[in-house]
Amino acid sequence: MSFLRNGWYCAGWSEEVGREPFARTLLGNPVLLFRRQDGTATALSDACPHRFAPLHKGRLEGDRISCPYHGLTFDASGQCVFNPHGDGRIPPAARLRVYPLVESQGAVWLWMGDPDLADPTKIVDLNLVPGHVMHGYLNMKSNYLMVLDNLLDLSHAPYLHSGTLSPVGTRRETTYEATDATAKSIYKMPSVPTPATQRPFFDGPIGDFYTTIDWTVPTVLRQFLCFTGVDRPQEEGAISRAAHTLTPQDEQTTHYFWAASRNRQQDNAQIDAKIRSMVEYAFTNEDGPMMEACERYMGTTDLLSLKPAFLQVDPSAVRARRTLSRLIKAEAGESPPSTESQAHAQDGQFA
Amino acid sequence: MSFLRNGWYCAGWSEEVGREPFARTLLGNPVLLFRRQDGTATALSDACPHRFAPLHKGRLEGDRISCPYHGLTFDASGQCVFNPHGDGRIPPAARLRVYPLVESQGAVWLWMGDPDLADPTKIVDLNLVPGHVMHGYLNMKSNYLMVLDNLLDLSHAPYLHSGTLSPVGTRRETTYEATDATAKSIYKMPSVPTPATQRPFFDGPIGDFYTTIDWTVPTVLRQFLCFTGVDRPQEEGAISRAAHTLTPQDEQTTHYFWAASRNRQQDNAQIDAKIRSMVEYAFTNEDGPMMEACERYMGTTDLLSLKPAFLQVDPSAVRARRTLSRLIKAEAGESPPSTESQAHAQDGQFA
Amino acid sequence: MSFLRNGWYCAGWSEEVGREPFARTLLGNPVLLFRRQDGTATALSDACPHRFAPLHKGRLEGDRISCPYHGLTFDASGQCVFNPHGDGRIPPAARLRVYPLVESQGAVWLWMGDPDLADPTKIVDLNLVPGHVMHGYLNMKSNYLMVLDNLLDLSHAPYLHSGTLSPVGTRRETTYEATDATAKSIYKMPSVPTPATQRPFFDGPIGDFYTTIDWTVPTVLRQFLCFTGVDRPQEEGAISRAAHTLTPQDEQTTHYFWAASRNRQQDNAQIDAKIRSMVEYAFTNEDGPMMEACERYMGTTDLLSLKPAFLQVDPSAVRARRTLSRLIKAEAGESPPSTESQAHAQDGQFA
Repeated sequence: MSFLRNGWYCAGWSEEVGREPFARTLLGNPVLLFRRQDGTATALSDACPHRFAPLHKGRLEGDRISCPYHGLTFDASGQCVFNPHGDGRIPPAARLRVYPLVESQGAVWLWMGDPDLADPTKIVDLNLVPGHVMHGYLNMKSNYLMVLDNLLDLSHAPYLHSGTLSPVGTRRETTYEATDATAKSIYKMPSVPTPATQRPFFDGPIGDFYTTIDWTVPTVLRQFLCFTGVDRPQEEGAISRAAHTLTPQDEQTTHYFWAASRNRQQDNAQIDAKIRSMVEYAFTNEDGPMMEACERYMGTTDLLSLKPAFLQVDPSAVRARRTLSRLIKAEAGESPPSTESQAHAQDGQFA
Repeated sequence: MSFLRNGWYCAGWSEEVGREPFARTLLGNPVLLFRRQDGTATALSDACPHRFAPLHKGRLEGDRISCPYHGLTFDASGQCVFNPHGDGRIPPAARLRVYPLVESQGAVWLWMGDPDLADPTKIVDLNLVPGHVMHGYLNMKSNYLMVLDNLLDLSHAPYLHSGTLSPVGTRRETTYEATDATAKSIYKMPSVPTPATQRPFFDGPIGDFYTTIDWTVPTVLRQFLCFTGVDRPQEEGAISRAAHTLTPQDEQTTHYFWAASRNRQQDNAQIDAKIRSMVEYAFTNEDGPMMEACERYMGTTDLLSLKPAFLQVDPSAVRARRTLSRLIKAEAGESPPSTESQAHAQDGQFA
Repeated sequence: MSFLRNGWYCAGWSEEVGREPFARTLLGNPVLLFRRQDGTATALSDACPHRFAPLHKGRLEGDRISCPYHGLTFDASGQCVFNPHGDGRIPPAARLRVYPLVESQGAVWLWMGDPDLADPTKIVDLNLVPGHVMHGYLNMKSNYLMVLDNLLDLSHAPYLHSGTLSPVGTRRETTYEATDATAKSIYKMPSVPTPATQRPFFDGPIGDFYTTIDWTVPTVLRQFLCFTGVDRPQEEGAISRAAHTLTPQDEQTTHYFWAASRNRQQDNAQIDAKIRSMVEYAFTNEDGPMMEACERYMGTTDLLSLKPAFLQVDPSAVRARRTLSRLIKAEAGESPPSTESQAHAQDGQFA
């Protein structure tokens, strides 16, 4: 499995991590997550170094977790501190990998790569609307790059989500922006009916719809949606800001964490329920099956190796794939990261 | 996956192909099948060249199919004729493979290999009894060569189908004929009780039973069954003519299309129902599980590499395997096809 | 698949083998088991050499088994003795592998390796208490080495079986003994409450608990359990002797045959039922899921290649793994078996 390891990945929403130990496989590695007595979220390897038993099935007492198989006990730094067998000496190999974990913006962010490079200031600002934020989680049966493609490209909405998320009509003005580690798609659909996503908290029948989505290395997407009166300022409209962050579980499956915020009726639980149901329906019944079907026909996770047709909606998705591929190779020592200008040259292949 | 690609394979019965697009994986390739407005059956790649989405889930309007993911639209020649995105230019790679497809004898025949070699006159004459013909389809969980073995060798009937298809007794006169691309087994069982297959439309209690089955490259089998009075001409008897055509789905599974015709009571729907039930019961409950069990023990689809015991019932099945193997290698440029005499020399290995 | 082939493996309990042919995959090979008319247990390849059909689905008449697919008939020596096809000649390849099979101590023992080396005197004496012996069978979804680890190391009981098999408390005196092809763990737990395993037939509330478990190549484990009064002789106590023998089904699954005997109340069927339920509960609900979880995290069956932490409870399990690995390599001609002293030197790595 080849993933970019030096990067901050969402390991869970804050409310998922408590005193009940649980495990999540991240980038192919089983990770144990729990909160210490002082509330600090902690991530250790979930595999006991003795027989590789799943530690999350053991007992957490204070800040110490005991293996359910033979009782080896580890502290929150990963050090074995109790061996009930023989003379009780601690073997040198009895130590768990501890992962840098930072709690920020309602999530816990894990660093799977070189701990010395784990700089918390590099965690992406999700840029949500202050106040009430909804959190969701879905496990997708697709490679994370396929999910990234799907989310980074909103042009599929009129086709795949014609009856659910998407506004009627496909006329849109689109621009793309990119830096070496980011890609952004900006859409404007003028004079359309209220889109499903904004309908729960906007009453005008026709308006201008703006959406942007941007990606930051490794797998954080930020989405802006605004529905406002025709030719009216965005500030007058119904604004949503969402974050989608993806963490590879393994090559075939992806943890999809989503957050949603809005500028109106933040305390209306009925709107929350509608939005949650809309997102989950679309991802479970429309995007999910489509991504799985594409992957079955691709027979690989390396889309670009299949020389697909490129469309003018693809720059962000293709840039993300190329950038990640380049960084993964660089991390493996295969080649130096290319410069921005080289990346642009590659994009010249489009159309 | 290695299959003979230059050959006509049944892709479906005519009545399966209509205005509702559907997909079938043939020789490992996902194929989209539908009828154009003028009724012509059409076969295209089912994978959109942009993200490999399954086109059969899209919309067919006129003779154009739209991708369900991003709306690229293709005509029946496979050419992308509408791109709803950006400036609408059609990228050069936006083109689907179109497969030669010929409708003949109630079926659509597909050519997976070099289109320039697709000669419709090479489609095998199924040689069915004129008039009413029954069609059936079963998906077998075995490699197509195992199914070919099973069908081409009728000597298993007294054992595997003792209570269902086979007449009592195993005394039989058998002869084998072969050419470079065909193999034929001819059986006569004199003075036997009416076999199950002919009982629905023959009333004599004892008679002579004749069966022949022949194979033609790549995977077409034609079967003749006749039950007539003892030492009476075949014309007086109950005659069935059946066709069995196999199309590899992938290495593990096979599309099995069968057709059955008879010279008596063609308009008797009860006889149709009995025959259908007999065929489906035997293949689903007797042949199918046996073929799957054999393959589990073989651990390969290459029977001959296991140096099996050869019986005098095997020439047709072994010839078919050897011929296909030779043609597949030749197609891959590995060696020239051997001549007829070489093929005969190989058969000399039979004990 | 690499297993030690020159060794006696349990193929089944005597009562499992009768006139009804049945098949069991042993060391990756499908084996047909039945009793001849004179009662002799017999093991042949279950794959007919013609098309690899499963012979156990055929008919046993006298000492001859007929293939369910084409009727080839074999005698108990594996020789084809009847071919119903053509002129009836028997092809030279129509012969089944026959496996040395010895019935001893209530089980049938099979030799998968070189028949010339199959010495019945090498079958391990299970050393059960004379009289009533219980037999059980479980199919474990783990590699046999993982099951061997589990059984050979009783130190996990207080953790994994805290509410079921294990006595309260973990204080124990442990010693280990080993020869080149055996390993033995000896435990004493002084002054503990009656352990669950002895409770059904011992009434004292506090006593000394002794257990030993030893392993002999390839996969036979013998267990001794004794619960007696504090500082009283073992002979006064409740003694159990159990045997656990493992036969690899394939790399992923293991046949686990267990036998249990006791020195008290041998004819009490309620005690039998309690013991059976205890063993099956623990293995199915506690050991089984734990072994499967460990293997998922290991991603290999070669524990030692992962450089696990060694504990003072591990010598027997590690010795068994190393010995088997060495013998398997020697059998494959990769290197000569090391001498006893070399094996000891390797064990010096323990911390």
